[in-house]
Amino acid sequence: MQRFISRKELIQQIKKKKSMLCVGLDTDMQKLPIHLARNRKSVIDFNRSIIEQTQDLCVAYKLNTAFYEAMGEDGWWCMKNTVKLIPEDVFVIADAKRADVGNTAGLYARAFYEDLDANAITLSPYMGKDSITPFLEYEGKWTILLALTSNEGAKDFQTKRMKDGSILYEKVLRTSKGWGSSHNTMYVTGATKADAFNRIRKIVPEHFLLVPGVGSQGGNMAEVMANGATNDGGLLINASRSIIYSGSGKDFASEARKEALKLQNEMQSAFIKQ
Amino acid sequence: MQRFISRKELIQQIKKKKSMLCVGLDTDMQKLPIHLARNRKSVIDFNRSIIEQTQDLCVAYKLNTAFYEAMGEDGWWCMKNTVKLIPEDVFVIADAKRADVGNTAGLYARAFYEDLDANAITLSPYMGKDSITPFLEYEGKWTILLALTSNEGAKDFQTKRMKDGSILYEKVLRTSKGWGSSHNTMYVTGATKADAFNRIRKIVPEHFLLVPGVGSQGGNMAEVMANGATNDGGLLINASRSIIYSGSGKDFASEARKEALKLQNEMQSAFIKQ
Repeated sequence: MQRFISRKELIQQIKKKKSMLCVGLDTDMQKLPIHLARNRKSVIDFNRSIIEQTQDLCVAYKLNTAFYEAMGEDGWWCMKNTVKLIPEDVFVIADAKRADVGNTAGLYARAFYEDLDANAITLSPYMGKDSITPFLEYEGKWTILLALTSNEGAKDFQTKRMKDGSILYEKVLRTSKGWGSSHNTMYVTGATKADAFNRIRKIVPEHFLLVPGVGSQGGNMAEVMANGATNDGGLLINASRSIIYSGSGKDFASEARKEALKLQNEMQSAFIKQ
Repeated sequence: MQRFISRKELIQQIKKKKSMLCVGLDTDMQKLPIHLARNRKSVIDFNRSIIEQTQDLCVAYKLNTAFYEAMGEDGWWCMKNTVKLIPEDVFVIADAKRADVGNTAGLYARAFYEDLDANAITLSPYMGKDSITPFLEYEGKWTILLALTSNEGAKDFQTKRMKDGSILYEKVLRTSKGWGSSHNTMYVTGATKADAFNRIRKIVPEHFLLVPGVGSQGGNMAEVMANGATNDGGLLINASRSIIYSGSGKDFASEARKEALKLQNEMQSAFIKQ
């Protein structure tokens, strides 16, 4: 393990770059620009160009593991070699949405924190505390729990009312916030539910929230910033496809930069308003 | 995709073998018998021996993906080459406990159903319907949803009471059973909660249930069979470490067979009682 970014360092990065942007490296070999070959080396070349063009504008990169597992045997190699290209002061999230019991959770923690060397991993809370604590035990690493996701299916269970009057995702926040602290735990909260931020901030006023769906999935940046941001930043706002597939020609990386810059500018304006 | 086992074929296997046994190939490179090297070829040699010695006693094999991902780059290769060693009429479960939204779920489905060619994948229900339907769309393949897990943390959310009077895991069963059918959906239900089987069978009388934890985790076979089995079998009962690490010497595979045979005998006795 070499990558460690503390809460304090993350906040410093956010203030320095005037950005809460997380770039989602959801790289699909089939969607690479046409001039690149369909092989694992091209995936790395593509990711390298995106990283070079966006690293001064974002504070985090997120690798959705599904895109890499879809490459079969090459998947882990591509993830690992991508992580190596990311500067050490930029936060790396393995968006794995894993869940498993005790000793098995420990194996996932080893894989993602040690072998892959990510700063953080996303986890599903359904299996409860003992599926999460093996991750929290890694000093200097972070866990990011799914609370309220941005998809239609969030309505099936996450927003259902419990007997005690709370909503399931609120119960997840309230129960799990005691397992770790705002120094090693973040939450995934869907950007399309800006109304919900008030509910969320009442329960976890200081925790960082990872907000997906500001790009292709249609969340509103200004609304998210107004409702979710704290004095420390408090948000990582993710955009994936809208940045990495902004262009499809040889200029794909500079097109990606333009899109990242647009989002960073929106964030900077919101910073100034605060 | 080549592996397809229908509900009817699975029931035939169970009746023919008088077994509902699922052997968990949770192979940890560090725990291989001492005479084997610590490399990916040894993992395959180990799995091959276990499969050869148990394939007439079990109806399914389950690969917990965490154990393979902990091998880094070699993980997917080891999983894929293990699946190839399993006879086509034996059910293969990728115990991945994945969860993700629409297009990303589709990538996981492609990876596990096409590239790995598993018959089934385990999934976490927290993200709702649109995280599950991309899997259900694969004709001839199965999804296995976490309902009630056997770990301590199941109490944190799964067994909490909802406003409508149901318990969360019952709501998961009731809501999700309409997404697919008993021909393409199973549920994970923890063996240590035999009382709960009556509740579960009221909601899903015909669905197959994957019951973990009969071996090392301490469930009671007779109780599970009495409470959970149906006329069609209706259960896949998993044991992992208690079988594959039954011996630690050169006779590890025949020791594994003895343990599998013991469990199969218990099941056979329960069949006769029915």
